[in-house]
Amino acid sequence: MSWDWLMEELSPGEIVLRGIKRVETWVTTEYQEVAVVEIEGLGKTLVIDGKVQSSLYDEFVYHEALVHPAMVTHGRPRRVLIIGGGEGATLREVLRYKCVEEAIMVDIDRRVVELAKTLLPEWHDGAFDDPRAKVLFMDGRRYVEGAAARGESFDVVVVDVVDPLAGGPAVKLYTVEFYKLLKKLVGERGIMVTQATSPDHYPQVYFTVARTIAEVFDIVRPYVVSVRSFGGVWGFVLGSASGDPKALRSEEVDKKLTELLESAREKLRFYDGETHASLFNLPKHYRRMLSEPRRPSRDEEPVEALY
Amino acid sequence: MSWDWLMEELSPGEIVLRGIKRVETWVTTEYQEVAVVEIEGLGKTLVIDGKVQSSLYDEFVYHEALVHPAMVTHGRPRRVLIIGGGEGATLREVLRYKCVEEAIMVDIDRRVVELAKTLLPEWHDGAFDDPRAKVLFMDGRRYVEGAAARGESFDVVVVDVVDPLAGGPAVKLYTVEFYKLLKKLVGERGIMVTQATSPDHYPQVYFTVARTIAEVFDIVRPYVVSVRSFGGVWGFVLGSASGDPKALRSEEVDKKLTELLESAREKLRFYDGETHASLFNLPKHYRRMLSEPRRPSRDEEPVEALY
Amino acid sequence: MSWDWLMEELSPGEIVLRGIKRVETWVTTEYQEVAVVEIEGLGKTLVIDGKVQSSLYDEFVYHEALVHPAMVTHGRPRRVLIIGGGEGATLREVLRYKCVEEAIMVDIDRRVVELAKTLLPEWHDGAFDDPRAKVLFMDGRRYVEGAAARGESFDVVVVDVVDPLAGGPAVKLYTVEFYKLLKKLVGERGIMVTQATSPDHYPQVYFTVARTIAEVFDIVRPYVVSVRSFGGVWGFVLGSASGDPKALRSEEVDKKLTELLESAREKLRFYDGETHASLFNLPKHYRRMLSEPRRPSRDEEPVEALY
Amino acid sequence: MSWDWLMEELSPGEIVLRGIKRVETWVTTEYQEVAVVEIEGLGKTLVIDGKVQSSLYDEFVYHEALVHPAMVTHGRPRRVLIIGGGEGATLREVLRYKCVEEAIMVDIDRRVVELAKTLLPEWHDGAFDDPRAKVLFMDGRRYVEGAAARGESFDVVVVDVVDPLAGGPAVKLYTVEFYKLLKKLVGERGIMVTQATSPDHYPQVYFTVARTIAEVFDIVRPYVVSVRSFGGVWGFVLGSASGDPKALRSEEVDKKLTELLESAREKLRFYDGETHASLFNLPKHYRRMLSEPRRPSRDEEPVEALY
Repeated sequence: MSWDWLMEELSPGEIVLRGIKRVETWVTTEYQEVAVVEIEGLGKTLVIDGKVQSSLYDEFVYHEALVHPAMVTHGRPRRVLIIGGGEGATLREVLRYKCVEEAIMVDIDRRVVELAKTLLPEWHDGAFDDPRAKVLFMDGRRYVEGAAARGESFDVVVVDVVDPLAGGPAVKLYTVEFYKLLKKLVGERGIMVTQATSPDHYPQVYFTVARTIAEVFDIVRPYVVSVRSFGGVWGFVLGSASGDPKALRSEEVDKKLTELLESAREKLRFYDGETHASLFNLPKHYRRMLSEPRRPSRDEEPVEALY
Repeated sequence: MSWDWLMEELSPGEIVLRGIKRVETWVTTEYQEVAVVEIEGLGKTLVIDGKVQSSLYDEFVYHEALVHPAMVTHGRPRRVLIIGGGEGATLREVLRYKCVEEAIMVDIDRRVVELAKTLLPEWHDGAFDDPRAKVLFMDGRRYVEGAAARGESFDVVVVDVVDPLAGGPAVKLYTVEFYKLLKKLVGERGIMVTQATSPDHYPQVYFTVARTIAEVFDIVRPYVVSVRSFGGVWGFVLGSASGDPKALRSEEVDKKLTELLESAREKLRFYDGETHASLFNLPKHYRRMLSEPRRPSRDEEPVEALY
Repeated sequence: MSWDWLMEELSPGEIVLRGIKRVETWVTTEYQEVAVVEIEGLGKTLVIDGKVQSSLYDEFVYHEALVHPAMVTHGRPRRVLIIGGGEGATLREVLRYKCVEEAIMVDIDRRVVELAKTLLPEWHDGAFDDPRAKVLFMDGRRYVEGAAARGESFDVVVVDVVDPLAGGPAVKLYTVEFYKLLKKLVGERGIMVTQATSPDHYPQVYFTVARTIAEVFDIVRPYVVSVRSFGGVWGFVLGSASGDPKALRSEEVDKKLTELLESAREKLRFYDGETHASLFNLPKHYRRMLSEPRRPSRDEEPVEALY
Repeated sequence: MSWDWLMEELSPGEIVLRGIKRVETWVTTEYQEVAVVEIEGLGKTLVIDGKVQSSLYDEFVYHEALVHPAMVTHGRPRRVLIIGGGEGATLREVLRYKCVEEAIMVDIDRRVVELAKTLLPEWHDGAFDDPRAKVLFMDGRRYVEGAAARGESFDVVVVDVVDPLAGGPAVKLYTVEFYKLLKKLVGERGIMVTQATSPDHYPQVYFTVARTIAEVFDIVRPYVVSVRSFGGVWGFVLGSASGDPKALRSEEVDKKLTELLESAREKLRFYDGETHASLFNLPKHYRRMLSEPRRPSRDEEPVEALY
């Protein structure tokens, strides 16, 4: 049995302990405490501020679920913006698409990306060296404000940042104001998607994010996957002005993947047409939660994960 | 913060601690240690031998997922057998169907059912008093052997027993021999379904159960739901001689529910046509696991959850 | 292995988990949450607000260490005041002395004493029925203020209350003002003693209590014992106007015990002359801590256990 | 709050969790898993096979308690043998004595000593470089057998090895046969002392070790100290052919320390005459345990810490 354990509080009164077999790295950056550890059952794992970010066991579930529905629904994304995503795995999934000409990734913490480059090759898989990739180190909100002011446009925006912890740096990356900026960036044909915490552990946050995106985008598709590394169900929300992932049939998805990814298609481990077909039919109790009235999150009174 | 905690080892090196707000009951029966406790975030919870059996937070997810796909796929179940299911919630779901004429529930532990009657009204919801219900206290395997010998027949058999823990009482409720007996009971039109542990925490068990049922039934449909009380993804396997749940469209399911359940339909909280539509498309990595060669579990060398 | 665990934070970053074999009682009184549980290795245990108060394993160590040095040093205590001590075990030890004519116990929580009477017979051992015992339910500080105003006098005062947790009810039972009141009660020949938290887990509190008592009493004797149920070393402080426990030789203590306790002497399990001899020689590092300058705790700015 | 925790099972059903602030080193040697970590409240800590060996918080308590009573009781030790003691702190305490001409330390694990040299300067404090120190890497039992065969003699032997865990390497360092060899080495004037597990957590082991040494040495003095890093009381047993530590008065001890240690005396943080005076008066319940009949530990049926 391990003597060294990672303790993570999933919600008040709900703690997960995970046996650590090895601590590879443990550094304090300007913004956060970053560790790479080997965990029993999960393998190599990135831990930021004591929270599991992703592990070799199922990072592919999280990252494929985050990226592909938006990309495939768009149909031919050329310019993609990633907010966050320091490990490089979101970038990796985006760059699988031949049609992508430019992928801009904006992460606040240069140090995390540097660590990822050397310590997490299984995550980025060389993505940082792709000539189509451009990595900027700055606050995501500030980048988006600037890009909107400059009139830039993107086909897909992927938001892969930490939860809106009260007092944390990500609170204003989940508000109406932020999504309006994203709307400007993606225009009438583009799509945005964001990780959105766990509907089990932070229901108030998850369903408010869905409600907030609905304030800005006509088509809103919340979806969930099960991520053992995160202790259960994990939620995403996709916002779109025109394309609707729920309207895509399984065969269409597979066909598009074949066109867009070519040989890379075989590398996907979680996502394909059949997976897609299950993602956008939420169980009834989640639909009930979605239908309840809720105040959208706004800059001046944002939703926060409160513990 | 709680001072009293439930500690459950989900897999080696993976422990969940849950704050206990109250211990209602804690008794040792002839077969097991049974407690009813109030857990932070989960509410009233049944704990057997230190393992969460189900909680008010999401027992409906587990029990509806276990019962309804088989019932709806059958189309008009009249006689249903439940192996296990002491809390009475599986019985409750079965009895929602007007067409059910007799539901026989066989549980080894009389004491658990007695406790459930008084302490878990939210679970059984009066099901034990339904004149169509018949509860027997004996070993499930022995009952099934006798019933097969007597030539009894059932439309649906629901297996709701504990995991096949090494040395535990349920090991022979997951073998080829057992499923052959069930096949005899359900004949050419019937359906069986079983809970089948977690594909994350016991992948070897889960996928072996699917493989084992495939040895006996032509149509095998593994499916999963996320159950926070169980610490993540939970798996089921449905075996059928003719009807295929995956072939049912969302609207058909809703139509059948309306016919079969009438007014009760509104009471379902997890399951409906849209939920059904997502259940039978497993993500790609589970399909890959299913396609790997595996030895079926047999009485003389059964699959076991080994820790 | 247990599934039910008591979690106690001994100090920041230091947590003890103890396997619970049984929860006997768990009630919320007007003042606190009280439970009687059976703990692995400790046996029956009283838990208040999530903290182990005492267990059958070593309650005798705590209660004998608290009571006997003061009683024996006094030499012939007739009137004894106990502040706190709800379990009745401190009263039990006091009443072992034939010379004691009256023992007044003042506890704030009537409910705890009522529970102790029925559930903790091993603790009080009938002490509540002794005609010399008088139990009052009120705030200890208020009682002491009244008694001092009325000019009452006691030979020994034993303070057996919870730690001075910030914001808790006991903060003003550890201040200069409180000890001055005790000084009035015990006069020129009497002795007071108090439990005083753990010098390992709350060094600032323990050594401040010693310093505070030194502000009022000429002779101050801090002493410690090891109490496994409390997770390590536990501290007491004795204040005296004349008698000095450190001056008593081992044989004198045994002689006095024989005189004062008669047949009861054999019942002592922890304390006797030899035990006494070791109590008042603190290890060097504790003496160094005692010699450091410290502000005494005062009502307007009391020392508090801060987490 | 920490996310990284050291989990140590002190006894069945008794677990301590300690927050880790930093992992400095973590290596697997030929014999064991060795880590140096920074623990909340304890500071730098050596962990071997998941068990805290000693921490900066109170390693001085353990090492001074282990070494000085034997050294002072002997009165003029010239040749000292240390079995185990890889950190170098036992050697450090031994070398404080001017009269020591040779200190032979025998540890099985060369790697631990090498790590200690670079990572634990606070422990060895340069002791490995003292010309009087001689460090050998071999099994302690084998060394002692050879030394006894060669007719070597020592004034003091200090046994500072791990607990006799069932199946572990130290079981035969706690038996009658081993102590007979030590008796040969120390002759009629010498003294041996051993760490002997916790009387709270392994009472059967502790009191058996005392009983076993009593089989060989005329004077046997068990004594205990409180070591927070070890989760409570820790036990030692001293065996002597002539000198008796319990006969030494406080002033004699201080006088000897002044003679033997000179300027170094001030460096002792735990031990002095007053500390000595409290060490050899055990509380009554320990004396009762010591007086119970017990089988000594023998090579063919040794006492073992069983979990």
